[in-house]
Parts: sequence; C-alpha cells; structure tokens
Amino acid sequence: MLQSVVNLTKELISIPSISPLDLGCQDIIIKRLTAIGFLVEKMNFKNTKNVWAIHKGTSNEKTITFLGHTDIVPAGTINNWKFPPFNPTISKGKLFGRGAVDMKGALAAMIVAIEHFISSNPIHNQRLSVIITSDEESKATNGTVKVVNTLKSRNEVIDYCIIGEPTSINIVGDTIKNGRRGSLTANLTIYGKQGHIAYPKLSINPIHNIIPFLNALIKKKWDVSNTFFSKTTMQISQIHSGLNCSNITPGNLFVQFNFRFGSQITIEQLQFEVNQLLNFFHLKYSIKWVISGKPFITYKGNLLDTVQHVIKNFHGFLPKTSTSGGTSDGRFITTMGSEIVELGLINRNIHQVNEYVKISDLKLLTLIYLQIIKQLI
Amino acid sequence: MLQSVVNLTKELISIPSISPLDLGCQDIIIKRLTAIGFLVEKMNFKNTKNVWAIHKGTSNEKTITFLGHTDIVPAGTINNWKFPPFNPTISKGKLFGRGAVDMKGALAAMIVAIEHFISSNPIHNQRLSVIITSDEESKATNGTVKVVNTLKSRNEVIDYCIIGEPTSINIVGDTIKNGRRGSLTANLTIYGKQGHIAYPKLSINPIHNIIPFLNALIKKKWDVSNTFFSKTTMQISQIHSGLNCSNITPGNLFVQFNFRFGSQITIEQLQFEVNQLLNFFHLKYSIKWVISGKPFITYKGNLLDTVQHVIKNFHGFLPKTSTSGGTSDGRFITTMGSEIVELGLINRNIHQVNEYVKISDLKLLTLIYLQIIKQLI
Repeated sequence: MLQSVVNLTKELISIPSISPLDLGCQDIIIKRLTAIGFLVEKMNFKNTKNVWAIHKGTSNEKTITFLGHTDIVPAGTINNWKFPPFNPTISKGKLFGRGAVDMKGALAAMIVAIEHFISSNPIHNQRLSVIITSDEESKATNGTVKVVNTLKSRNEVIDYCIIGEPTSINIVGDTIKNGRRGSLTANLTIYGKQGHIAYPKLSINPIHNIIPFLNALIKKKWDVSNTFFSKTTMQISQIHSGLNCSNITPGNLFVQFNFRFGSQITIEQLQFEVNQLLNFFHLKYSIKWVISGKPFITYKGNLLDTVQHVIKNFHGFLPKTSTSGGTSDGRFITTMGSEIVELGLINRNIHQVNEYVKISDLKLLTLIYLQIIKQLI
Repeated sequence: MLQSVVNLTKELISIPSISPLDLGCQDIIIKRLTAIGFLVEKMNFKNTKNVWAIHKGTSNEKTITFLGHTDIVPAGTINNWKFPPFNPTISKGKLFGRGAVDMKGALAAMIVAIEHFISSNPIHNQRLSVIITSDEESKATNGTVKVVNTLKSRNEVIDYCIIGEPTSINIVGDTIKNGRRGSLTANLTIYGKQGHIAYPKLSINPIHNIIPFLNALIKKKWDVSNTFFSKTTMQISQIHSGLNCSNITPGNLFVQFNFRFGSQITIEQLQFEVNQLLNFFHLKYSIKWVISGKPFITYKGNLLDTVQHVIKNFHGFLPKTSTSGGTSDGRFITTMGSEIVELGLINRNIHQVNEYVKISDLKLLTLIYLQIIKQLI
C-alpha cells in the first residue's frame, strides 16, 4: 500500500496538468476506481474535467466524499528547480515535483487509502464517493461548483466531505481546517474630470478625491473575531489612475479591495458600510461587487469528532482547528449542508519552486485517511 | 499688410506640422526673412527644426527677439471639425484650422509686422531677431533650449523677448504674461512585499502604506501667494499598483505628482518637505525628480512698460499681467537674463476641435506687434 501511494504520486506529477488542464490524470484515477467497483461519472464543463465516483454500501445511510484536484499552478522558472518539476525525483527521502503537496500527493493518498479499505471491505454499510476537478487553482467556475449544482439538482446528499488541501504546518495532521472565511471583492471606479495639471480648478482630480475615503477605509474596524473566525481583514489589491503623462489630471480612477470575513458579519453589512463611507465623502462612483465565497464552518459533528480522534490516536494530541487563509472548494460543498474537514500535507512549500513532499508524510497521510474511512463506515 | 497676415496664416495652417514636425513651415518664413535682409541660421537638432535669424541695426545696442513655434498639437477626431483642420477655411470672419491661434496666427503676425517695419525702416538702430522652433508642444528637448544654449556659448545676448503664446482672454492684448510658474515632478516608488491577500500579516501592502502620506500631501499648504505668483499647487497625476488580480497584495506602487510654483518657494524647499513627509510615515521609497522649468518673472523694465503702453494706446486700458497656466519656452530664454513678455491671440479654443482665430484679431495683433517694434527701436 505504502509504495503504491508514492508510485501514484509520481505518475500524477509527471503530467504537467497546469490549471485548468487535466491531461489524463483523472483517467489514471478513474481506471483504478473502476477496478475496485466504483461507478464513475465524468462531469466535464468547457475546459474543465470533473469526476463524480461512488461505491455503494449496504445501507447507504451516510455519504462520505473525498474531494481533490488534479490541476496545479505553473512551475515558474524551471531553471530555478533542483530537479525538473514534471520529472518526479526522490532525493533524501523527499519527492520533488510541482503538485507533490498541492495536491497530487494527497489525492494519491485518498485513492490508495480507498483501495486498501475496499480490498478489505468490499461490502460495507455506507456510501463512499470521490469528487475530482481540474480547476481548483484558476477560475474554479467549471469545477466543483458545477458538480455540486448537478448533484443538488438530483437531490444527492453528501454528509461528510474530506478535502485534501495542504492544511498541516509542521506534522501531517497538526492542523485541520473546519471552515473558511468568505471572500468579497469591490471593484470601484471614481469619476472626476480630466484637465491640464496647471489648472487644478478646471478639473476634478479623482486621485485627490479618493484619498480621504481610502484613509478611512484602511483605518476602519469592521468587526471583532468570534469563536471560529478571526476579525475581518480588508486589503486593497489594485489602484490605477492617470495616463503616462505628468501634465494631465486623470479623468477617473479604479481601485479594487478585498474582504476576508467570517460568520460575525454579513456581505450585506460590509457592502452597506462601504457605500455609506463613499457617500460620506461625496464621491461620484460606480461599484461592482464579486462574491468569491461565503464563509462556512463545521463547528461540531461526527466528521470533526472522527478526524480529531484519529489524529489524536496517531500523534497523542488533538489537531488545531483553523479557518484561516484563502477560500477552498469547500465553499461549494457547504451549500449541500455537508460537514466539511480539510486535512492534507504540510503547506510550507506549496506554489513555490522545489515543491516537495516527504515520503514518510505521504505514507502517514494515507494511513490517517484510511483510519478516518474505517471510523466513519 | 493686413491681407498678408491672413494669407501667411492660411499657408502655415495648410501644413500638418504636428509636433515636433515642421514639414516646411520654417522654409516659408526663412524665404521671407531672407528677402528683407535677415541673416538666417538653421539650428536643427535631431527631429526638431529651429531658426535663429537677425537683422542688424546701426548701433545694435539692444536685441529684440520674437519667439514662436511652427509645430501644433494633433487635430484629434477630424470628423468632429466643421472644416478640415488642415484646410484653412474662413467662415463669418473666422479662420478655422489647427494652429490658427496656437500659434501659426501669431507667428504670421510677427513676420508680417517685421516685414512692414523693415520696409519702412531698412536702416534702424537696434538688432531685430527671430527664434522659431518646431518643438514647443511635445518634449521641447531639442527646441528653444538648444538654441539658447548655442547662443549662450557664443556670448549672444537677447535683451527683450516677445513670445507669441496665446495669452489673451476676451480681447487681443487684454492679458499678457510677464512670467511663468515653475514645474517640478516627483516620480515616487513605494516598496512593499508581495503576498497572498488572505494573509495580510505576511505581506507589506504599499497601497495601504502610502495612503496616510498622500492624505497629508493633499492637505499640505506649501506657501502663500506673492505679488507675482499665486500659491503653489500640487496635483497627483498618476498612481499605479497591483496586478490584474484580486488575490495578490502588490509588491510596489508608483505615484507621480507635480508642483506648479512661483518665486515664493524654491525647488530645494519643495523637495525637502516631500522627503520629510515620506520619512515621517516611515516609507521605503525611491524618488526621481524632474524639473521641467524654473519660475521666471519680468516684473519691471523697458519691455514690459512698452508693451503695456502700446496696448493702452489701442484699448484705453492696461493689460492684465499674469503668471498663471503652464510653462512656456520663456523658461529657456530667461536663462539669458532677458526681459520677457508673452502676448498673443485669444486662448479660448486652443488645442480643441474647431480652433479658430477672428480675422480682425489677426490684424489687430499684427498692428500691436508693429507698434511694439517701433517703440523699442
């Protein structure tokens, strides 16, 4: 079993499936799942490949779903890598390659754990399933969100969802995510009046006009943390105004800012407060909001208890639960009312050059996943 | 004489000499000046054509220079013009075409006034001269500045300089410029640390960091007006930061701002105060200053007296003296220690579509220039 997870990880790394490409990764997994009796359905949308696979049990009371992705972020400057990023190489107990941690390694661990469980338990009680997408890293518009919408239209239910995102800090399983903050982006345009810079009275400078607003925006406290979520953060990601010319006052300005927020505040409250601030400063503006994900949390339940219990058995301590960082595909699964836990490899070098996973970590994660399956079924 | 100025203006307008092109305008003028005994020297630098022409007198005690330019700004959307911009057209007493006011009309008025003066006074006391450039409207790096440098290297002197820029508001001569403000531009880069927007503590957001500085910058009073100059104005012309992406905190920020200032403050003081403000906010920055022109003023003297006297004789009132607006080629002439007055056509529609000059204004300006020459010589 343990050599199998290393081999499958290497096989997946050797395919340069830069998001949203899959390039045959899912076919490898489909073949293996079919071999152990899974019913596999391809749910491809535009450039994105998705898989929904189930292994029925005798009662099917609960559905346990593993969620993963075959796509990766680009390798960056290939010459900066010790070993070619798509030529998986083991050196001193570490397997190097793009996607080793995020998340071809964890995906392989899921598949191998499932294979091992089914080989010992071909007949079991519950329903075991897998969702795989090839667009978690880029736009995520034709990936898990569309699979979830399809499943909901069929009244399918997912009770427990384990996501293989790299949540661990120092030891595999030391940290799990039982929720994620929401992400809300404002695309704001401020309107002024273009003119010659020597005649400020004849123009309306949108840069000057927005500064007091931005000054208030960065100073504002939006809320306080609650038990599950840290306080809301606001970051300005872009600001652009002006022609490539020092003697023209620009006619308008674009600024983009992003909120990461938890259950202590709503999207409507954030939007209301921003609009109020804009009006306070008498700005002429238009604003376009983009909701990338609402916050979600699994603050208790059988899945969380099971995962915590399994990890305590391995390490002797309970994992830290966290909702920090970016959003994940859990934002789509949560709309099915599922309990969600994210548990994966050590995230220290994800998206960087020389991404690697320790061989021992790959094997440990496989064993942890196997124990979770055993406990839940 | 008065028909001649209309014809010459039309001839010049029909040449689309978009800055820094001349396309033969200067050759037309050179031919006319040579015909009346001027010694003409071409001082071309790179893509810019310049003329230095002199008509010596018997004593040559004083040099009286007319300064003009043959280049024009682009016509913009030609379909928006009533008449084609390079097909000079007279309609209801107005001559339409790009450059009619700024400043082919005034240039024609200078030349025709000079021709008329010389034809009546082929032998005169002082030295009469003309400088013409084809780059006043764009970069101005190979135009008047290089002519002035060449003249200074020969120890040439200009005592009085009359510049044909369009200074008038309602009646030709109602306003003259006896100086101009300086123009100083700061190109400021703020350094932060790029990162994922969900982890603000791991990055340094240069947009957030610069806002308090910009807020102080726009509120700051730099000085107060003096007799000749209005108070210093500061305008931010550009601000750019961020990739086209809502989940990355940018690594740096560029902002450009421009001062227009008079003799009440120095460039060094402005730079000192900006640096002090940057340090107060503990910003990590680099700054590149560009001095486009220092302020200059002719607050009294024979030239100013003469121009005021001539205009009073025409209109019954003294012209208003002003130092407002952008800078002019006078910033280069002033380095020769010359007295400078700018006097030209009505500036209402310069750089706009349907630029036009009233035929009566063209004739009036020619007569005013002629009177000024007569008074000075």
